[in-house]
Amino acid sequence: MQRPIISLMTDFGLKDGNVGVIKGVILGIAKDAQIVDISHQIQPQDILEASLILSRSAPYFPDESIHVIVVDPGVGTQRQPIAVRLGKHLFVCPDNGILTHILDSMQDQNHPIKAVCLNQTAYWLPHVSHVFHGRDIFAPVAAHLAMGVSLDRIGSPIHTLVELDLPKPTRHANRWSGEVIHIDHFGNVSTNIRREELANVTKLVVEISEKMIPGLFKTFGERHAGELIALFGSTDYLIISKVNGNAAEDLGIRVGSPVDVFIVEPIS
Amino acid sequence: MQRPIISLMTDFGLKDGNVGVIKGVILGIAKDAQIVDISHQIQPQDILEASLILSRSAPYFPDESIHVIVVDPGVGTQRQPIAVRLGKHLFVCPDNGILTHILDSMQDQNHPIKAVCLNQTAYWLPHVSHVFHGRDIFAPVAAHLAMGVSLDRIGSPIHTLVELDLPKPTRHANRWSGEVIHIDHFGNVSTNIRREELANVTKLVVEISEKMIPGLFKTFGERHAGELIALFGSTDYLIISKVNGNAAEDLGIRVGSPVDVFIVEPIS
Amino acid sequence: MQRPIISLMTDFGLKDGNVGVIKGVILGIAKDAQIVDISHQIQPQDILEASLILSRSAPYFPDESIHVIVVDPGVGTQRQPIAVRLGKHLFVCPDNGILTHILDSMQDQNHPIKAVCLNQTAYWLPHVSHVFHGRDIFAPVAAHLAMGVSLDRIGSPIHTLVELDLPKPTRHANRWSGEVIHIDHFGNVSTNIRREELANVTKLVVEISEKMIPGLFKTFGERHAGELIALFGSTDYLIISKVNGNAAEDLGIRVGSPVDVFIVEPIS
Repeated sequence: MQRPIISLMTDFGLKDGNVGVIKGVILGIAKDAQIVDISHQIQPQDILEASLILSRSAPYFPDESIHVIVVDPGVGTQRQPIAVRLGKHLFVCPDNGILTHILDSMQDQNHPIKAVCLNQTAYWLPHVSHVFHGRDIFAPVAAHLAMGVSLDRIGSPIHTLVELDLPKPTRHANRWSGEVIHIDHFGNVSTNIRREELANVTKLVVEISEKMIPGLFKTFGERHAGELIALFGSTDYLIISKVNGNAAEDLGIRVGSPVDVFIVEPIS
Repeated sequence: MQRPIISLMTDFGLKDGNVGVIKGVILGIAKDAQIVDISHQIQPQDILEASLILSRSAPYFPDESIHVIVVDPGVGTQRQPIAVRLGKHLFVCPDNGILTHILDSMQDQNHPIKAVCLNQTAYWLPHVSHVFHGRDIFAPVAAHLAMGVSLDRIGSPIHTLVELDLPKPTRHANRWSGEVIHIDHFGNVSTNIRREELANVTKLVVEISEKMIPGLFKTFGERHAGELIALFGSTDYLIISKVNGNAAEDLGIRVGSPVDVFIVEPIS
Repeated sequence: MQRPIISLMTDFGLKDGNVGVIKGVILGIAKDAQIVDISHQIQPQDILEASLILSRSAPYFPDESIHVIVVDPGVGTQRQPIAVRLGKHLFVCPDNGILTHILDSMQDQNHPIKAVCLNQTAYWLPHVSHVFHGRDIFAPVAAHLAMGVSLDRIGSPIHTLVELDLPKPTRHANRWSGEVIHIDHFGNVSTNIRREELANVTKLVVEISEKMIPGLFKTFGERHAGELIALFGSTDYLIISKVNGNAAEDLGIRVGSPVDVFIVEPIS
């Protein structure tokens, strides 16, 4: 049997041992699982950030990967634990909107979706706490799925999933108005304006934080260290970067900051 | 042969490559080992913190897991390197008290204990430094244990282990006095008062940092964001939390801060 | 078939999911790969730091390990992606000097070297971005090497590699002048003066940051907590440490700070 792949994304941090606990639980059930960390440094309770990073990461995993996402401010309340098949991947998480971005991108591609609410306690740890469902529900359920248990046996069908309202950019005459949706480790600033919205555009100027920043460049090395540039990131969002520097820090930019993109060429 | 599981806990941080080195050494000996990180962000030299996190994590791993713990301020001195079987788990570490919490909880359950002092250099790296026994002794010993080498062959029996004095809570008339023993990534404050000490208690008030905090709640979502509550954490210690916030930061709490629990119901 | 080992070193940090993406790509090609993180906290764009940590880590991995290093300020420009066999290890990285330290130490030992420039796009992801070659080129190439594809098929031979100028210590009458090349998680300060340069020296005094620090000690525990000492680190560089403390922080030392070593015994 091929070794199943289980990816993990949480807001647990790496200090307290809780990620290790989840892995211990998984390996107790699915001893050959190949467990891969996507991130454990999601901002505490930041479902939107988790949703975005998931949508940028999961598609690069092999078919039949199982993705466990535990950013769960509603743990122990009415919010439901779910397992969802989206195309060739499985997702195990709370139903709190954490799948919004990936649902968005996958629905474009007409992937089949099947969701169940996790209610079959036989697949949970024997003792379920009120505060750590990652350990007590999500990890063992993912491990049982990895062992071949079907969605039908692990829960009951549900037909709607919680989705977040995503900020969408607005088109004006020669301008798109959007906002900052992510700042990465290097200080690259990701906007919510995508390559498809700028199809055929070769020259633009980005206004952010009272600066005008030239684009479109292809890569960082086209300009000198210290210069600000606009380009498409590796997942096709328009980003603002400082060559070999930290654009977000220098410009005082945060998630949610407004951004305007002026189209210079072609004049539409 | 089943793939052996080796967990790692250190105070090395993740920057310098030393955790990777330990994994490289293990895989050179036990090529099928499944290596799992518990934490590498133990406070430097903080044996007490390592002991606590270990006792909360290791029990969730499968039987026959091997746990390597390297928080080792006495490296290169007289302190002994040891390997210990506690029930169905093995531990490889310096004999500096790092097993105190787990010995405590396992002795309650009458688990067999067998300890050896590591003195069989055939199971170490050929060159042993004075400053990195994690790489030179603990990693290769754990890997040889994973390959089936017995405790008897890997060292000589010892009959007492170093144990730390753990702070215990004190019972007063209608009150327990304890202290803070851990603060997690979310700022949840863990006290040394356990569920068993509060058996039958349904209502209590915690005094900490000159605030009175109501309990017992079951989970975070029972109160509004920003409220302080007391509840049992996932390992049955009484914790103080701020719903969707950081209690420790807001109240200026540190490990060692005193805490008093006033029992409201039942009146004993 | 034995499970191939692939180590990863990047400056990506652990927050954004990019390390997970690289692992997903690898497992999609080499499903049995054993992937080990060396570090993802290299200072952004710090090729020199990556080179040093690589040279201290890779030698502890088993033969035939494949090391992927992505610290790549020149991504998308003329700098070439390469794969290199050094003795019994393989390295996949940009040709930007990242192999300098390991080439240095391996050339001493007369290891065979074979390098190719990666230009066979059949072994890359179908869509190659301008900004994330770790995902699009280095990860899939490493995975194909792990599956047994030869260097000859994956690229074209090249005969020189970019190397960095490493700062070398200078010998004076009774003194070596060097500099700080690394500061670890504990605040231990690593100099570029090695054990071989101090052969036969048993007593020395280090001058750094206007302090005189006694050496040579064997290990931290020989002095009291809080004392500054000089000793050899686990990779045979002379280091300055504060027992159970943080020498770099206390002395305000940074990478590049000058250091002088006065030889007391033997008088040469």
